[in-house]
Amino acid sequence: MSAATHLIALDWGTSSLRGALMDAHGEVLREADTADGIMSAAGRGFRAVFDSLAGGWLRDYPRAAVLAAGMIGSRQGWREAPYVACPAGFAELGAGLAWLDDAGLSLGFVPGLATRHADGAPDVMRGEEVQIFGALDALGVDDGIFVLPGTHSKWAVVENRRVLRFHTFMTGEVFALLRQHSILSRTMPAKDATPWSAARDSFLAACAAAAGGTLLHRLFSVRAQGLFGTLPEELQSDYLSGLVIGEEIREALSLLGGSMPRQVHLVCSPDLFQRYHAALSVFGIGSSDCVRQASFRGMLAIARERALIS
Amino acid sequence: MSAATHLIALDWGTSSLRGALMDAHGEVLREADTADGIMSAAGRGFRAVFDSLAGGWLRDYPRAAVLAAGMIGSRQGWREAPYVACPAGFAELGAGLAWLDDAGLSLGFVPGLATRHADGAPDVMRGEEVQIFGALDALGVDDGIFVLPGTHSKWAVVENRRVLRFHTFMTGEVFALLRQHSILSRTMPAKDATPWSAARDSFLAACAAAAGGTLLHRLFSVRAQGLFGTLPEELQSDYLSGLVIGEEIREALSLLGGSMPRQVHLVCSPDLFQRYHAALSVFGIGSSDCVRQASFRGMLAIARERALIS
Repeated sequence: MSAATHLIALDWGTSSLRGALMDAHGEVLREADTADGIMSAAGRGFRAVFDSLAGGWLRDYPRAAVLAAGMIGSRQGWREAPYVACPAGFAELGAGLAWLDDAGLSLGFVPGLATRHADGAPDVMRGEEVQIFGALDALGVDDGIFVLPGTHSKWAVVENRRVLRFHTFMTGEVFALLRQHSILSRTMPAKDATPWSAARDSFLAACAAAAGGTLLHRLFSVRAQGLFGTLPEELQSDYLSGLVIGEEIREALSLLGGSMPRQVHLVCSPDLFQRYHAALSVFGIGSSDCVRQASFRGMLAIARERALIS
Repeated sequence: MSAATHLIALDWGTSSLRGALMDAHGEVLREADTADGIMSAAGRGFRAVFDSLAGGWLRDYPRAAVLAAGMIGSRQGWREAPYVACPAGFAELGAGLAWLDDAGLSLGFVPGLATRHADGAPDVMRGEEVQIFGALDALGVDDGIFVLPGTHSKWAVVENRRVLRFHTFMTGEVFALLRQHSILSRTMPAKDATPWSAARDSFLAACAAAAGGTLLHRLFSVRAQGLFGTLPEELQSDYLSGLVIGEEIREALSLLGGSMPRQVHLVCSPDLFQRYHAALSVFGIGSSDCVRQASFRGMLAIARERALIS
């Protein structure tokens, strides 16, 4: 197959699908997203969902390369692209692409990454790896700690444009469970509406409290402080957020130990950037500006590496 | 009011009500329980629930003293008995009883306890305090660390039959949220059916892993180990249980520091005793046998202290 001049990049996760049509310079010509993550898309059929999002792009650019990253490449997705073991760089990710040919569509699934911790425990990521490679490309750096906050936050150690190892933290999911389903949720307003400027101090106080490393104990203090009127209801959600994000950072520092630099690279939405940037500063760590479109950029970098586009 | 010869003791929490009719020696003559915790009882009316459970006992022993402990004495309960500040012993709890007189029924609500940690954060218990005093009575001890595992586990420091201070841990609730609602629950069997003899090794391995103090990270390893086939689905729930209980013990050791003895007193059901006894041993801590009927015994001890029964 001769190299294409365009790339269709799909960031296809559990609960959403975002797609972009890019030219070889990385300019995004068209963009679309749907709530057809692999959970809901499985019912409609992956090909039907693909066609409705990107079928028109492919008709206009029939020779475009097509790559997909995220849970769509897992065992529960369209086609499994097995995890590639760390250390891994662009070359290993590109070599691990799993190809599907389906009625005129040739689609490459980006593999996830697997690592093994010092104690033998495994860890995995799927979808975040393209964001890391996109951020490397966007920032023009070869090394550093890349932090990807989210449901399952990732901290990845990168050297010479290769992911050496990484750690996952269930921060976002634990926050959401506590925010929505725990006893703590009963005294919180149903919706988070406190502006960051008003929430910041409570958030930072919780980050500092989290530095003590007693999360299960501190969680209950949200309730006790509420009972005694020292933590107003409209600030409890932000305090809770500070406790779990602060705990994530404390744990990451403990796991990364001596290899922790003074500055990390944050890859996330502007909202999360604000929160993590502030939380990291409590621990004396700086963070570079957030990278936009990291996922699409990462797929473009992999497509270039594999000479899929020119 | 002259002293009664019998006590009706009600352990009335958020989701259940357990009652006992005891003689002055502590012998339980009748016992009953219902799912009418304060949540469901509020709808039917607290008096109606009381009558259906203990109305007959009161007709047979009209001069019986009646005490109730637990969330029934909270702001959301039948009558509020405000928290008593630690340090507190039998005398302070007895003095804090809040009395309700309602159509021939005189009912004393046991107050909860409040403490303030070194950093100023408040903490509360309500219901557990009578169990601690019941255990003191049952074990014939005056001092020690009392551990009450549960939805919101409590670790209380007792000296000279007074609770000096305590720490709450949201262990049971965090476990339940993760077990039932998180991504980890997806690969676990719907019901926990693995016998303790088969689950013990996984549980203990997780307790040891928890000693490292990286809970948010370790939680994800349940999933990753499942993906790589190193943690079978039927053992994942016990591994998760070990992670959170191990974390609770690690945090308690860090909070209690130098005041931690080689042995604690566990007050809980036999199932939880087995689990906590094993988990504590990973941290080199022994635990005394579990106390039965600690709640009823505690109310009896308070009734005696206040000369409500003779």
